[in-house]
Amino acid sequence: MGGKQAEWIWYPGDFEIWLRREVELRRDERKSTIAPIWRVDSPYTVVRFRKKIKLDHAETVTFLADGELRLQIGERTIEHPERGVRLEEGEHAIMAQVHHLSRVPALFAKGETIVTDETWEVGPLWHSGFERAGRGGFRDPAVPPADFRLETEPLAAASVRREGSSLFVDFGRETFGYVRLHAIRGEGVARLVYGESEEEANDFEHCETYDELLVSERDGEEATVPHSRALRYVRIHCGDGLSVGGVSLLYEYLPLVYRGSFRSSDPQLNRIWDVSAYTFHLNAREFFLDGIKRDRWVWSGDAYQSYLMNYYLFFDLPITRRTIVALRGKDPVAHHLNTILDYTLYWFMGLDDYYLYTGDLAFIREQYGSMLRLMAFCDSRCNDNGMLEGRPEDWVFVDWADMSKEGELCFEQMLYCLALETVVRFSELLDDGETGERYRSKAGKLRQDIRRTFWDEEKGAYVHRRLHGSIDSFVTKHPNMFALLYGFLEPEQVDRVKREVLLNPDVPSITTPYMRFYELAALCEIGEQSSVREEIAAYWGGMLELGATSFWEEYDPVVPLPDQYAMYGRKYGKSLCHAWGASPLYLLGKYFLGVTPAKPGYEEVQIRPALGGLEWIEGRVPVPAGEVFVYMDRKSIRAAVPAGTGRLRFRSGTVPTCADGDLVLLTDGWYELLLDSPGREYEVRFTPTA
Amino acid sequence: MGGKQAEWIWYPGDFEIWLRREVELRRDERKSTIAPIWRVDSPYTVVRFRKKIKLDHAETVTFLADGELRLQIGERTIEHPERGVRLEEGEHAIMAQVHHLSRVPALFAKGETIVTDETWEVGPLWHSGFERAGRGGFRDPAVPPADFRLETEPLAAASVRREGSSLFVDFGRETFGYVRLHAIRGEGVARLVYGESEEEANDFEHCETYDELLVSERDGEEATVPHSRALRYVRIHCGDGLSVGGVSLLYEYLPLVYRGSFRSSDPQLNRIWDVSAYTFHLNAREFFLDGIKRDRWVWSGDAYQSYLMNYYLFFDLPITRRTIVALRGKDPVAHHLNTILDYTLYWFMGLDDYYLYTGDLAFIREQYGSMLRLMAFCDSRCNDNGMLEGRPEDWVFVDWADMSKEGELCFEQMLYCLALETVVRFSELLDDGETGERYRSKAGKLRQDIRRTFWDEEKGAYVHRRLHGSIDSFVTKHPNMFALLYGFLEPEQVDRVKREVLLNPDVPSITTPYMRFYELAALCEIGEQSSVREEIAAYWGGMLELGATSFWEEYDPVVPLPDQYAMYGRKYGKSLCHAWGASPLYLLGKYFLGVTPAKPGYEEVQIRPALGGLEWIEGRVPVPAGEVFVYMDRKSIRAAVPAGTGRLRFRSGTVPTCADGDLVLLTDGWYELLLDSPGREYEVRFTPTA
Repeated sequence: MGGKQAEWIWYPGDFEIWLRREVELRRDERKSTIAPIWRVDSPYTVVRFRKKIKLDHAETVTFLADGELRLQIGERTIEHPERGVRLEEGEHAIMAQVHHLSRVPALFAKGETIVTDETWEVGPLWHSGFERAGRGGFRDPAVPPADFRLETEPLAAASVRREGSSLFVDFGRETFGYVRLHAIRGEGVARLVYGESEEEANDFEHCETYDELLVSERDGEEATVPHSRALRYVRIHCGDGLSVGGVSLLYEYLPLVYRGSFRSSDPQLNRIWDVSAYTFHLNAREFFLDGIKRDRWVWSGDAYQSYLMNYYLFFDLPITRRTIVALRGKDPVAHHLNTILDYTLYWFMGLDDYYLYTGDLAFIREQYGSMLRLMAFCDSRCNDNGMLEGRPEDWVFVDWADMSKEGELCFEQMLYCLALETVVRFSELLDDGETGERYRSKAGKLRQDIRRTFWDEEKGAYVHRRLHGSIDSFVTKHPNMFALLYGFLEPEQVDRVKREVLLNPDVPSITTPYMRFYELAALCEIGEQSSVREEIAAYWGGMLELGATSFWEEYDPVVPLPDQYAMYGRKYGKSLCHAWGASPLYLLGKYFLGVTPAKPGYEEVQIRPALGGLEWIEGRVPVPAGEVFVYMDRKSIRAAVPAGTGRLRFRSGTVPTCADGDLVLLTDGWYELLLDSPGREYEVRFTPTA
Repeated sequence: MGGKQAEWIWYPGDFEIWLRREVELRRDERKSTIAPIWRVDSPYTVVRFRKKIKLDHAETVTFLADGELRLQIGERTIEHPERGVRLEEGEHAIMAQVHHLSRVPALFAKGETIVTDETWEVGPLWHSGFERAGRGGFRDPAVPPADFRLETEPLAAASVRREGSSLFVDFGRETFGYVRLHAIRGEGVARLVYGESEEEANDFEHCETYDELLVSERDGEEATVPHSRALRYVRIHCGDGLSVGGVSLLYEYLPLVYRGSFRSSDPQLNRIWDVSAYTFHLNAREFFLDGIKRDRWVWSGDAYQSYLMNYYLFFDLPITRRTIVALRGKDPVAHHLNTILDYTLYWFMGLDDYYLYTGDLAFIREQYGSMLRLMAFCDSRCNDNGMLEGRPEDWVFVDWADMSKEGELCFEQMLYCLALETVVRFSELLDDGETGERYRSKAGKLRQDIRRTFWDEEKGAYVHRRLHGSIDSFVTKHPNMFALLYGFLEPEQVDRVKREVLLNPDVPSITTPYMRFYELAALCEIGEQSSVREEIAAYWGGMLELGATSFWEEYDPVVPLPDQYAMYGRKYGKSLCHAWGASPLYLLGKYFLGVTPAKPGYEEVQIRPALGGLEWIEGRVPVPAGEVFVYMDRKSIRAAVPAGTGRLRFRSGTVPTCADGDLVLLTDGWYELLLDSPGREYEVRFTPTA
């Protein structure tokens, strides 16, 4: 049987929503499941797939379902559709009802010309609401979407220490997986106390996760814990009558290709990049998670940064799409994403970036309806000033920083404005004039109102908020960083914000890597790569000096070691492997290698490398067609793009030369070299300063 | 352990929504499940229960959950809450998270003073959206709501005929349950072909339901089919190697008390009442079903009539409440109930009747929010004239009668008006002035517009519809019956409608018992009990003469017998046990015994008996406090109410006498006797006409 390739299809979004439910309900803390604080969505219980086809020749089609299937061809109900259905030449209307109470109702059909693919429609009702089917590359009829599992591979322990009836195991670095016990003798309960730190694995009373497993040599010499856990260390206590001879791990991971790279003259910085990449990979799983030990939920604000890091490391789009769809959830929108006002708004910004980095308009089209419904939810929450503020049931997060969140926060209005502008941009791309018109004026007015309301000329800064109609002129870094990053500053205001806020020691400093992401990016935007490099060396280097093998949720250099592990009032509450800890990936790729998309999907690549005080840097940044290569030292720059055109930009105190193309000196004092031969490595050389 | 009584609690509506999903997904036609054509709702996956309490003395509380439980008392997470939790004197905040992917997440707690009851709150989110917990009398900790099952009891076959390797079994009348095979010898497949008629059980090719069961004497001498089915007959084919010695049924039913009764001088009419009661009981199950053989779904239009019949037979309120809540479904409303425009509107009318018959304001209060959200859905579908018409995705049903359903149907506007008036009434009862104000003017305007738009003075009738702004003056009985029943006629119009429509042979006649319900009620409203009695004798008596043991979905006297069983283009497609076939229960109780609530909850009972040409009638009508008794013959009336006051009303050509109270001759020519001593039987005697 040849013909076209079939794949499993489902109601769009249902796979992602089902998978998110699976993942988020795995959070167990000391044997008690903590469900997400937001509404837990489920796929539709019953869906109907339909397709009309015209056959030139008769063929036999086999139908499989994940769930119970009722297949109708025209008026005829087919018995045993899995045994193959003969369809004669001519027109046929296929209607397949599939229902399942706990998995993703899905359909797989394979004939010579009839196969389940994106041309099928699906809906939850009998006669209306049909949409293009969802799919995700599940081509094996034996593996429906609800059988999606990450990969695993055996990993040996770095050291196993026997202490009486217990074993203390170190896997050498932070990792994730299913612990496996070997050479089991007797029968009894094994208690596994996991630790991201040695202290945690030795502290059953306060550890965040543990398992208890009844094992017996009768069941075999080997037993694997059914839950995958974050750990570097595990202490295994063997109960009476039980002994365990060895321990290993079934490492669990999402297979991803490390396409991005970074090397420089600074070995510590290289190590920071490597540990960032590993940290990020551990957190890039079914979705972009916040951290691998504790809640393992999908958070929109955390994911927004992960999307950006991903563009500089894996450029894996399926995980980004899964995360975007899962975060959006099922209609109707009942509350903000993750219940957090800002997290709803990051969702739009993530979609905007997705299009910019990938140029994938098809996905934008698929999400367009969902996006508009989410924006309609925001509309319904908008106050009379056209601004968003938290309601009693909303969580206004911004950051863990100490600030009041009541009223109209300048920070939130900036995000809201960016979200509105995203909607406008997509409405233009998709020729939806009516939507564009509505939101264009709203976005334009809000951008003006933000300046008018929150910019304090005297302070040279955006102030915190308006409360009950009065301006609260408290200054935080948050709105000012965002102003710098997202175009809320006139050229003459940039320098004032730099001096009065970003480099002003009187403004409360940022303490979370989460907001450091934006702070350091903002500093890079104004050419402060050198101080950012120093900051990275101190902050991330500081964690490495404390023995970190992955980067943390939070780090304060003045806190002594065992206390570092505490957070949320719990002794080991802090995640030691947190996605937002990996931001050097983004900073080094975007602002040192300097690669960004000048046009959607990198049709035009901008390359603005910066040494930031290093001797040399070299690396690759993934783009849809391959990788952009960049090398820079004090004497030269080399760069190549795999497709499209590149625009290499740099400043130079001396006259640069290039044998590969024409250097243009722009009016702003920057040089530009057009890289118009994909694959060719261009070199610029600087005449040594005398 | 004494103390208060605990019961299982859940998110309000989730039990009913879960149960409806269970019931409606049981529809299998020839081994293929047909899911409802509407959205299949599910309970929330995760819910949180909470309660704050203050204890005078320490106590131990045991917590059970259906699903996975996470229990927090204050900041403390409790391990093994099922083993009992010691709570000290003082204040405590209890938060219990329960999740389940396919059942109803539910909680049961039992201590000395702390028990799960209606004082607990529950919500799907962590910090908002809490409501009063749902409950339903599940007091056994071992039986959570998702273990709800109907009762069963063994029922012997009326006859078993052996024919070669098959058995033909007759249970003597229509019934419902699980067929049981006895004295099994050997091993093989038994095929059970069910029939509501003998013909169906003998026609495997065309029967609506059958089962195939692999049975073996090794598994025991007895085997029970796992599905409960509607049947009177079953043919059991034993495959090679198998023999079955006997057959019985595990009759499945909802235990209900037959509180209403009716007897008269006409034995056939008595038999019709009895078969109606049996028909109705078979269809009164988890919910009020439409019919027991075929789809067994919950339909709002069918249920509306069942509510009314129930008030005259069982007065069982839990099944009515279950049906109302299940029909309403989960928010948001995505389409009309059952996708049918009229069926959304009957839902409001059913709630209105519920309050009138029961006086149960607590339930109205519970449903009030749901009701307003359903009305908001109608608002969103209202056209510029303030009227409802079908959209492409809507089903405008009215009746199976032959009529076009496009445009603004007079019939639908009448239901809409009644729905709006229900909202207004409840808003007044619950002091919701804002809602009352909004809908009062809308309802008032619509009532006027219906008269102005659809009343045709020349025809003396309400006409069918307005289409694209033009009146279609086709006359059907439907809007005119409803006009008569629900006050859309001025006194002078009543007689015209009677002559020009109801008794006019040129107007297409009603063919479904569904609409006969309203037609015969309308005739009774204008004093036509005698012709209604004749109609009942002919129509329902006609079914009895054809051997019916329960009443049918449809009946046409001119069709010969085996053809009677066909419907929907299928040989045995017709349901022979259909709830709407039982309407004599309602007609005889309301219009012959003449009992109706004059005030909500029968605080005042109106009794207007009518012989309708019979020698005598006698019966009981259930009310909240007991039963109203009525007897009438040509010489006397006797009546008693169990509580409150009764107003006996009657007309008389001669001067009546009463030794038990004062007879008042009202200005409209009716006599009235006040029954102000509950429990006392009052008698009125008529002086024989000379």
